[in-house]
Order: sequence, then structure tokens, then C-alpha cells
Amino acid sequence: MDRTTNLNKVLKSLQTRSPDVEATALISDDGLMIASALPQELDDTRVGGMSATLLSLGTRAAHELQRGAVQEVIVRGEGGYAVMVKAGRGVLLLVVANEDAKLGMIFFDMREAIHAIKEIL
Amino acid sequence: MDRTTNLNKVLKSLQTRSPDVEATALISDDGLMIASALPQELDDTRVGGMSATLLSLGTRAAHELQRGAVQEVIVRGEGGYAVMVKAGRGVLLLVVANEDAKLGMIFFDMREAIHAIKEIL
Repeated sequence: MDRTTNLNKVLKSLQTRSPDVEATALISDDGLMIASALPQELDDTRVGGMSATLLSLGTRAAHELQRGAVQEVIVRGEGGYAVMVKAGRGVLLLVVANEDAKLGMIFFDMREAIHAIKEIL
Repeated sequence: MDRTTNLNKVLKSLQTRSPDVEATALISDDGLMIASALPQELDDTRVGGMSATLLSLGTRAAHELQRGAVQEVIVRGEGGYAVMVKAGRGVLLLVVANEDAKLGMIFFDMREAIHAIKEIL
């Protein structure tokens, strides 16, 4: 199997394990999609660009506010969460979940996924 | 007492209630400081600008990813958290906490503070 198929499998399994996870994507630091399991109504280009910008700004903020290396950037809205995490050199993992999601469980599943992603890339 | 004194009191009390909270600031949407209780080594102008940009980008991300109105933007670093919350029209509250902080408790205390801030402004 090629890498893209394997990466898509990891993303799909993230969504299967937590029914509250609605979308996942693997995005390069410059905002381009590497693999994704996004609902049709979400625009790949915009989601990629915004996620990369948020994580990059979060990295600067963590440094400026003396919080050390950034772990996650989390946006909580009335309808749920968007979590962005560094998933290795030059790559970030985005998980979008509904408001019933347990953040701790999402972090746990994301760490597992990142481990698998690093093995593939 | 004038408004600034009252606002500073609210910020100080946020820090007194949670010993894990290391810095607090009330910032306008365009990134200017309204009141703050920041350690000397943090630069007011940079912290203000960055926090406003992060919350504004988080607002766009929440909308784009269909998470509804933004509640908080959270940056988690190895050394703790930075949390940005809308605190009324044109104003945001920034709380910086160490890694021992309980996020749930911070959110709770922030809501209380925002209530007090809205009464003052």
C-alpha cells in the first residue's frame, strides 16, 4: 500500500474510535493538505491554510508567553472543538470534534495517530 | 474608584484565586492593553497584539470549521497554558497559567472575572 492510503487509514481510524470526531486532516506547515477525512462542506484549501497559520501563531505565542514548545492549539466554539497538533517535522494534525467530545480522550487518540503517522512518513 | 483600578482588581483576584495563574490581561480587539497583571519580562505590546490576532483567527476558524461562535482559544505549551476569551464587546481576557493548572477551574474563574469586567466597562 502507498503512503497516502496508509495515512488516510490512520485518519479514518481516528474518527471511528471517537464518534464525536467529525473531521481529521494532515496538513503541511505551509497549509497544504497531505491527507484528509473532511466532510464535503469543508473547503480543503481554507481549512489547510487556517490550521497552519493558527499553529504557527500559537507556536510564537507559546514562546512569547514563556510556555515552552507548543503542544496543541485548541479553538473551542459553541458547537465543539478544533485541535491542531504538530505531527512531526513540517506536518500538523487537525481534529475537529463536536461539543460532546472529551478533550482528554481526543488528545490521547491524537497521540496514537501521530505515532502511526511518523512511522508512515 | 476609577475603572482602571477596578479592572486591575479583577485581574489581580483572578491570580490570587488560582496560584497556577501567572499572568492576566484585558486587551482590546485591536491588540491594545486595557489593564494587565503581567510579569515584567513579558512585553505588553507584543502580548496584546498576538492575543488579539489569535482570538480573531480562532473566531474565523470556528466559523470555517462549523464550530459556531468561538468560546476560547487555548495554546498549550510544555510549560503551561495561554487562554484567550471574549470578555464583552471589543475586549478579550488573556490568562497565562503554568502546567499544573486545571483548565476547567481556569475557565470557571475566567467566567466569573468576565462577569465582573462587564459590570465595570
